[in-house]
Amino acid sequence: MEDGDADSYELIRTLYPHTGGAARIGLTGPPGVGKSSLISSLITVCRRREQRVGVISVDPSSPFTQGAVLGDRIRLSEHFLDPQVFIRSMGTRGHLGGLSKATLQACLVLDASGKDAIFLETVGVGQSEIEVASVADTVVLALQPGSGDSVQALKAGVMEIPDIIVVNKKDHPMADVTMNEIRSILMLGGQQGSWVTPVLATNAHTGEGVEELWDQIQAHGDHLHGCGEFEERRDAHLEREVVSLATREMERWLFERAHSDPRLASILEAVKDRSLDPLSAMRAILVDVFLIPQDQL
Amino acid sequence: MEDGDADSYELIRTLYPHTGGAARIGLTGPPGVGKSSLISSLITVCRRREQRVGVISVDPSSPFTQGAVLGDRIRLSEHFLDPQVFIRSMGTRGHLGGLSKATLQACLVLDASGKDAIFLETVGVGQSEIEVASVADTVVLALQPGSGDSVQALKAGVMEIPDIIVVNKKDHPMADVTMNEIRSILMLGGQQGSWVTPVLATNAHTGEGVEELWDQIQAHGDHLHGCGEFEERRDAHLEREVVSLATREMERWLFERAHSDPRLASILEAVKDRSLDPLSAMRAILVDVFLIPQDQL
Repeated sequence: MEDGDADSYELIRTLYPHTGGAARIGLTGPPGVGKSSLISSLITVCRRREQRVGVISVDPSSPFTQGAVLGDRIRLSEHFLDPQVFIRSMGTRGHLGGLSKATLQACLVLDASGKDAIFLETVGVGQSEIEVASVADTVVLALQPGSGDSVQALKAGVMEIPDIIVVNKKDHPMADVTMNEIRSILMLGGQQGSWVTPVLATNAHTGEGVEELWDQIQAHGDHLHGCGEFEERRDAHLEREVVSLATREMERWLFERAHSDPRLASILEAVKDRSLDPLSAMRAILVDVFLIPQDQL
Repeated sequence: MEDGDADSYELIRTLYPHTGGAARIGLTGPPGVGKSSLISSLITVCRRREQRVGVISVDPSSPFTQGAVLGDRIRLSEHFLDPQVFIRSMGTRGHLGGLSKATLQACLVLDASGKDAIFLETVGVGQSEIEVASVADTVVLALQPGSGDSVQALKAGVMEIPDIIVVNKKDHPMADVTMNEIRSILMLGGQQGSWVTPVLATNAHTGEGVEELWDQIQAHGDHLHGCGEFEERRDAHLEREVVSLATREMERWLFERAHSDPRLASILEAVKDRSLDPLSAMRAILVDVFLIPQDQL
């Protein structure tokens, strides 16, 4: 599937009716916060409770990250021999603002294979990272003590409020200050609906607080089911997922044909020599290439 | 234009042939780094050198940001009476990963009006924020001393390397440490082409280092012209801009019609009841709704 093999369409078609049983948990946070250790600890807790677990870790495919990925592998290695745990790292390059087609496919395969919980790990702090929410039932944001930028991003509303916030490295001298700061931001508003975002402290290495984190993830799932939001959220996510897949495929299609398709190439050339403006070019693409009726623009 | 008025299409068509003269400078960084103060100082430098300046400040439209926006206005107020300076704050909500249609239009208007330099300010640290690069000639990343998350994001390759890095608040005790850390990350690689990203220290309040920052922005522009990359970069940006406008317009079109268009609604309903998988749904949208030939998918 990651190679874009045509067979994967057939496979997804066959598997899709068997999906929907797994809880999808998004975990995001800045690099270095200890997301991999946290997931490793969460897996331990899940396995103790006989939950089958899938992990999809989305790493930016940069030359810089080789070391980090290796490090993550070592951290997760204690689960490598457990047949009820499946872990996969994938790249993101070229697909901003969410999860790639390959990631969504992997998610469906793990779901159909009978996993009870699927963790989706993304790196970074920004609205696009929190967008894992577009496929996750529960979004967990991991922060580290004293990590000013992330807390500022929450405070400034650059980032939407996640379902659960974890401050990892709870023994850090700044841990309490950071937790209080986050709590006061949450009290200022931004809370959507009836769920109140809990702020937890963990130590991923010793496992402290990780049972409580898993309990809160479960509690959030129960809350969604209890208030009837679960189906609504899933439906909205599926809708966004399909529209986003279609949009990105069209974007890819446009870029691929930017120079070879004569209609597209002449539109883009005209923009470059400033004889056609970008907005008229946009309309020309929608009307002439995608045949959208003029009056619907 | 921000209201999406239909007349704006006509206006852009008229103005577009007169654009292309202004240098576009993207400035991004985490909230609280002092981007507004930095821009205010840069404007002072520009005005001293008789440059006409436009500023487009893209703030997330969150209830949290009211205070920040007001603060920014106060910081920029010393330039409010200068007819050669135009400052505009705009929202981003609903348009991730770049600048909105309204922002691009505002940019064209300022360009046609004869500004020499246009500053595009975006908030946040992540790949989507650095994406201001898709319309800027020069991208400046502002960081603050001791801001671990941003430096980590650079190090981990979550963020691409900008053209210029500024460490603001140079009197902070951590300023030197942060600058050295950034320099060592840059030395490790990631440098694209022949331009070497300079790392500068500024104090936006006193204006220290801001002349040097402007000199480096100019030097980067000269570099692009000198090595012949300027036209290439501008053309690539225009292409991306048009494709991105068309893609987002199609996305908007899809969301708007998700429930009213019978073809779309039935595709999405089938995904929700799991009788049609997301990839087949994506293809159905491209082939049945946008009439893309099946063999081009």
